[in-house]
Amino acid sequence: MSARPSLVNLEEAEARAAAALGGPTFDFVAAGAGDEVALGRNRAAFRRWCMVPRALRDVSEIDTGTTVLGQPIPFPVLVPPMGLQRIVHPKGECEMARGVAAAGTIMCVSTVSTRSPAEIAATGVERWFQLYLFEDRAITDDLVAQARDAGYGALVLTVDGAVIGRRDRAIRSGFAFGPDIRIPSVGPALGLPEGGDPIALGGMLARSTTWEAVGRLAEAGLPLVVKGILDAEDARLAVEHGAAAVIVSNHGGRQLDAAPATLDVLPAVVEAVDGRAEVLLDGGVRRGTDVLTALALGARAVLVGRPVYWGLAYGGAAGVREVLDVLRAEIVEAMTLLGRRSLAEIGPEMLIKEAR
Amino acid sequence: MSARPSLVNLEEAEARAAAALGGPTFDFVAAGAGDEVALGRNRAAFRRWCMVPRALRDVSEIDTGTTVLGQPIPFPVLVPPMGLQRIVHPKGECEMARGVAAAGTIMCVSTVSTRSPAEIAATGVERWFQLYLFEDRAITDDLVAQARDAGYGALVLTVDGAVIGRRDRAIRSGFAFGPDIRIPSVGPALGLPEGGDPIALGGMLARSTTWEAVGRLAEAGLPLVVKGILDAEDARLAVEHGAAAVIVSNHGGRQLDAAPATLDVLPAVVEAVDGRAEVLLDGGVRRGTDVLTALALGARAVLVGRPVYWGLAYGGAAGVREVLDVLRAEIVEAMTLLGRRSLAEIGPEMLIKEAR
Amino acid sequence: MSARPSLVNLEEAEARAAAALGGPTFDFVAAGAGDEVALGRNRAAFRRWCMVPRALRDVSEIDTGTTVLGQPIPFPVLVPPMGLQRIVHPKGECEMARGVAAAGTIMCVSTVSTRSPAEIAATGVERWFQLYLFEDRAITDDLVAQARDAGYGALVLTVDGAVIGRRDRAIRSGFAFGPDIRIPSVGPALGLPEGGDPIALGGMLARSTTWEAVGRLAEAGLPLVVKGILDAEDARLAVEHGAAAVIVSNHGGRQLDAAPATLDVLPAVVEAVDGRAEVLLDGGVRRGTDVLTALALGARAVLVGRPVYWGLAYGGAAGVREVLDVLRAEIVEAMTLLGRRSLAEIGPEMLIKEAR
Amino acid sequence: MSARPSLVNLEEAEARAAAALGGPTFDFVAAGAGDEVALGRNRAAFRRWCMVPRALRDVSEIDTGTTVLGQPIPFPVLVPPMGLQRIVHPKGECEMARGVAAAGTIMCVSTVSTRSPAEIAATGVERWFQLYLFEDRAITDDLVAQARDAGYGALVLTVDGAVIGRRDRAIRSGFAFGPDIRIPSVGPALGLPEGGDPIALGGMLARSTTWEAVGRLAEAGLPLVVKGILDAEDARLAVEHGAAAVIVSNHGGRQLDAAPATLDVLPAVVEAVDGRAEVLLDGGVRRGTDVLTALALGARAVLVGRPVYWGLAYGGAAGVREVLDVLRAEIVEAMTLLGRRSLAEIGPEMLIKEAR
Repeated sequence: MSARPSLVNLEEAEARAAAALGGPTFDFVAAGAGDEVALGRNRAAFRRWCMVPRALRDVSEIDTGTTVLGQPIPFPVLVPPMGLQRIVHPKGECEMARGVAAAGTIMCVSTVSTRSPAEIAATGVERWFQLYLFEDRAITDDLVAQARDAGYGALVLTVDGAVIGRRDRAIRSGFAFGPDIRIPSVGPALGLPEGGDPIALGGMLARSTTWEAVGRLAEAGLPLVVKGILDAEDARLAVEHGAAAVIVSNHGGRQLDAAPATLDVLPAVVEAVDGRAEVLLDGGVRRGTDVLTALALGARAVLVGRPVYWGLAYGGAAGVREVLDVLRAEIVEAMTLLGRRSLAEIGPEMLIKEAR
Repeated sequence: MSARPSLVNLEEAEARAAAALGGPTFDFVAAGAGDEVALGRNRAAFRRWCMVPRALRDVSEIDTGTTVLGQPIPFPVLVPPMGLQRIVHPKGECEMARGVAAAGTIMCVSTVSTRSPAEIAATGVERWFQLYLFEDRAITDDLVAQARDAGYGALVLTVDGAVIGRRDRAIRSGFAFGPDIRIPSVGPALGLPEGGDPIALGGMLARSTTWEAVGRLAEAGLPLVVKGILDAEDARLAVEHGAAAVIVSNHGGRQLDAAPATLDVLPAVVEAVDGRAEVLLDGGVRRGTDVLTALALGARAVLVGRPVYWGLAYGGAAGVREVLDVLRAEIVEAMTLLGRRSLAEIGPEMLIKEAR
Repeated sequence: MSARPSLVNLEEAEARAAAALGGPTFDFVAAGAGDEVALGRNRAAFRRWCMVPRALRDVSEIDTGTTVLGQPIPFPVLVPPMGLQRIVHPKGECEMARGVAAAGTIMCVSTVSTRSPAEIAATGVERWFQLYLFEDRAITDDLVAQARDAGYGALVLTVDGAVIGRRDRAIRSGFAFGPDIRIPSVGPALGLPEGGDPIALGGMLARSTTWEAVGRLAEAGLPLVVKGILDAEDARLAVEHGAAAVIVSNHGGRQLDAAPATLDVLPAVVEAVDGRAEVLLDGGVRRGTDVLTALALGARAVLVGRPVYWGLAYGGAAGVREVLDVLRAEIVEAMTLLGRRSLAEIGPEMLIKEAR
Repeated sequence: MSARPSLVNLEEAEARAAAALGGPTFDFVAAGAGDEVALGRNRAAFRRWCMVPRALRDVSEIDTGTTVLGQPIPFPVLVPPMGLQRIVHPKGECEMARGVAAAGTIMCVSTVSTRSPAEIAATGVERWFQLYLFEDRAITDDLVAQARDAGYGALVLTVDGAVIGRRDRAIRSGFAFGPDIRIPSVGPALGLPEGGDPIALGGMLARSTTWEAVGRLAEAGLPLVVKGILDAEDARLAVEHGAAAVIVSNHGGRQLDAAPATLDVLPAVVEAVDGRAEVLLDGGVRRGTDVLTALALGARAVLVGRPVYWGLAYGGAAGVREVLDVLRAEIVEAMTLLGRRSLAEIGPEMLIKEAR
């Protein structure tokens, strides 16, 4: 790579991506639903918490490591499923995978990837496979088989995608897919035309499927993660239907614009799950201190999406790794300043609400 | 219509109307009273609520239908009384009526319409007739007769118009009525000069009439809707004097600038009415999620004014329909994402206050 | 007057004055202390209240009249003491007096007037006389004698002026007094040089005087008003030392920048005074609805300063009257829309806090 | 000094420094950590408090004097440790010392000073010596010896500097140290290269040292002040390990960006210390009223950093003195307006929370 100065923070990754991409592509990725209220809420929720440092503790060694579903990761950040990565990089999800692997964490591979599950697996990245419930159950079963065959470590079922939310900013910007965008995982099976709009896939998602389908998926032989939970009762249902983890998510503010901030509903979900499954969170995480705030409120780890996508856009695998490395370094710095040596020492007692 | 791209959201309708109209006309419609505090409050009230989606419910069929005063409507949105529509379209209220009819809902026809109640009725739109109490009771009686003769389905009595509020923005903008603005319903009876300022009508409204007059109107043979209620005790009085419905309204922020947001007082009105009448609401509804928020807090339906007026201004009947169709589509999308199949499933349990 | 369009609201008076005056003079009048926090608080406090209209009450006649200290006034607004009025109009306080008289209310004449108490009295305006306690008690006694001789109806003792607050904006703007600024009431007695800085007077105010001095002043034969009260215990002390009224004031945000908004402390003062004296308020009143909000929280009347000063600056006596007439018309409109016929019907039951 | 107009307030000192310094140097000093949330919180916390003046108390004499650690100071403001002062003035800390001495208060001299402890002491300023715990204990012991030999009155141990926080604004601005920046106190002992980046020192700080080390330092023969406390339990530990005072500080928002505002945690620290030590505060103090707010909440005195640094940058010792004199004058004015003659009269009863 050139002599570009190193990345200062994740916000800068967005600025670099904006410069590297055309406006419509940038807007397609950046946009939230509607008036982008949920998008703003996700960020604002983190600002309402303060963390109180403890002084003069031994912080000569900081350990940011944890496990998710029993799998060790060097810091509590995963990469969530994000589709269509060839719109920002010619090698798409394979390039992303190399960056995530370099950073040492887990990549959730989207069904709507432009590279096949097997191609992505071949990079060697630690990987989970995200899928939807399709109206045609054979499609879902085939996706599970692909994931199992390609050595994915878990299934991530997205449950907030009964329809694809309208993202006004992206519509106005006029983004259009290029002819080279294909979805190998399900495109042929669904009969999606080559070079057609992959969003057409949205029309084939199951809208009548209910929790029973989750139960079946949980028995498919891979740990099941349910992504898109905002309601405590839904978290309970997920656990009761076999989920090993839930991801508190409002889809990065891209689905229901009236949705609450994920951090605001996290405590209720944690309480409902009551230790029977792991609770992850995404939405608005941009700083190492954000990661720790989510953990202090009960998340086991978080997922960071758009910043990593921006890394792919401006710098390929190196950009992805740089974004994740900056975030990891911020976690180390914050733990040092907080006087916490390990994530086991991160808890609610270090938080106070911002005074108003 | 030309190849104009389809409307993205209701806010865009305002931008299109601003481009189509001269500044003074736009300001005359857009303005709120005074410092436009009430105008801003109406919008802000919706932002303070979040809606929590439920996952994996059967949303293969979404039914947005309801009834108001026993009359079925395909989605819970009506068009409120708005006067003087020829200032934005040469065919005025008749053009509006064709758009509302195409969208399938009910139009409240203002006494201060520039087309006669009978002309508007002839379009076939489902219609209610709005009126004021005039100092001269014969005028009011004549309006009731016109509404009955022209097949209007209900009377909508405006009770927040003892005087017409000063709208500073409109005054500064210097809007003046053209010579072709007439008010067929009452103009001749009131002796308003042709081409004169129709606002002169404001001086002929009753300021000494009280609830007894409402009782008389309720016996005129048409269901009575009382519009402009903000106080719970007034809601009770309306019901006790025979109202079949009340509309919680601060006149779109155009009357008392210190008035509360309509959404904020809705629960108290719903509680006071206690099921004895239907409760509608207007003021600040711009998104499908706003509609559902009002319903979750107890409204049976809402009225959406200015955006529809903007539709008339930029696109005539087609614009009116487009605005209403976009809003309806947003309701469908929001219900799908919320996991609610029918309006019967919309209730307060899906709301949480935005964290602060 | 010329064909200038009539004044839309009080904010516009400020814009007109800004255009008529040089920047330094405008800033000298407009500035608050320090960072102008108190200035902003005064305004913001009114925005936190909503007023709930009642419908269908008889508002055919609106009576805005009241009394202060037994003296009838046509609407509950007085003009507070404001010094040095020749900086914005060559005839200074005499011109102001003619405008206030035309509007029919009471003018508080400042000790720091550029016209003598007797000259101002000769205009026939209803008048109260404002004074400070000077280190030299004979000066104070002489002011009382001047007020009594010139038929002033009350004494207004300012108690928040132990020093003159620094107004950073005015200092930066570099305002300087012209050579024609004199203070006839006390200038000669204090030995202030002609053409000198009248602010020098600040150094001659009593800083060691306490409530006993108020007791003596209360026995001077004129009703005593104590201006500059923010603390409930001080209000009690004022009453116990003979005050017939107190004015809740932070000097228009021009003294202690950390002071609370006057409206926010009004209820505590009203409770402490407990009907034994009248409670007035100034600070941030710019709308008819503001006047009614203060009355609903227990004020008998309010004082409106800068807007009237701006009226003097842009239009002389006619400007002063226009400002007061606009405010009075706003009170009438608000009462009509609220369904309140007289000030006796203005009470706390019509207020609700703005939702947040 | 030239005919520069006198300083209006501390904010203006920042503007003058910005004009005098290059952008990178200004940013290096001004920047907070990360998104500068903590920096903003410190300021905002003061705005949430109002002070209620009492009228007609004898304020003919105002005494702003107090003591810290038994040492009298003319007003309750000290200058905190700030390193590397030669980056804004060729004479560095010696010039600062002359300004502080002229203002009559105490200067905390940083270990990271560009002039030696002895040189600074030679100016005669009242002085405390700030130090870190170094990994190499002999370095710490040597610093204590230097401080004792040069007549410093207290040791100030910084406990929030286990690592040096990243200040994104400064990184982006590209500040680089000139070749003349040396750290006489520890540079030679640590083997820091002449003209190297003094931030390298950060890597030599102790990260494994705990409260026992504080106990040892407390027995070094000088009163011990522990700086960087935000947690009540840490305040208790500091006292139990011999601290004579604690400074509530988040390092001017330059370390953990998620840290709370110092004013917001002050009351809990004061309660925990319970009179067994003095409690000082820094962070966001820019006005005389801020100083009094902190004292009303239990601080004995405050430290004011950046504004004094700006004074050094724009005006050398005279600038330093001017900044401190302006602040002192503001304290006098505020006490006069509040009706408080001495700091003993400053207490929580004069505070009310800003209404919202």
